Amino acid sequence: GDAAAGKKRATACQTCHGMDGLSKLPEAPNLAGQVEPYLVKQLTDYRDGKRQNEIMNVVAKELTDADIANLAAYYSGIQIDVLPPG
Amino acid sequence: GDAAAGKKRATACQTCHGMDGLSKLPEAPNLAGQVEPYLVKQLTDYRDGKRQNEIMNVVAKELTDADIANLAAYYSGIQIDVLPPG
Repeated sequence: GDAAAGKKRATACQTCHGMDGLSKLPEAPNLAGQVEPYLVKQLTDYRDGKRQNEIMNVVAKELTDADIANLAAYYSGIQIDVLPPG
Repeated sequence: GDAAAGKKRATACQTCHGMDGLSKLPEAPNLAGQVEPYLVKQLTDYRDGKRQNEIMNVVAKELTDADIANLAAYYSGIQIDVLPPG
């Protein structure tokens, strides 16, 4: 996927997931640094109705395979540091 | 949820998701710092068969509501820092 193209497409995602991939809503997951093939599968499943969510099924319906690859490249490419749990 | 109890239960999750919430497999998402109510909903949906995944549907079947709350508290409580995307 092309992360720069994904960044442009991510303007449609930012209300819930942020441009930085940090969730704005209790129902929405963080996407920052998320595993790329996982993101591709979830977006594809939302588009194809295999994973159910009222908002995501509508939003993902518009996405091409290239859009999905690009969005996954963008969000997975955001670097995260994890602090060791206590 | 009780994060300390969740940490003990998370030994069942670590092969795929890590004790630090960083995925070990391309199919498994990171859980570190993930939104707590999102985690509760996904685990509940996996347990109840509303979200489909071969592994998670089996693993989650064993979980009580308290287990789910505790696991969500543990993984959501892991601190993450996000580096601003380019």
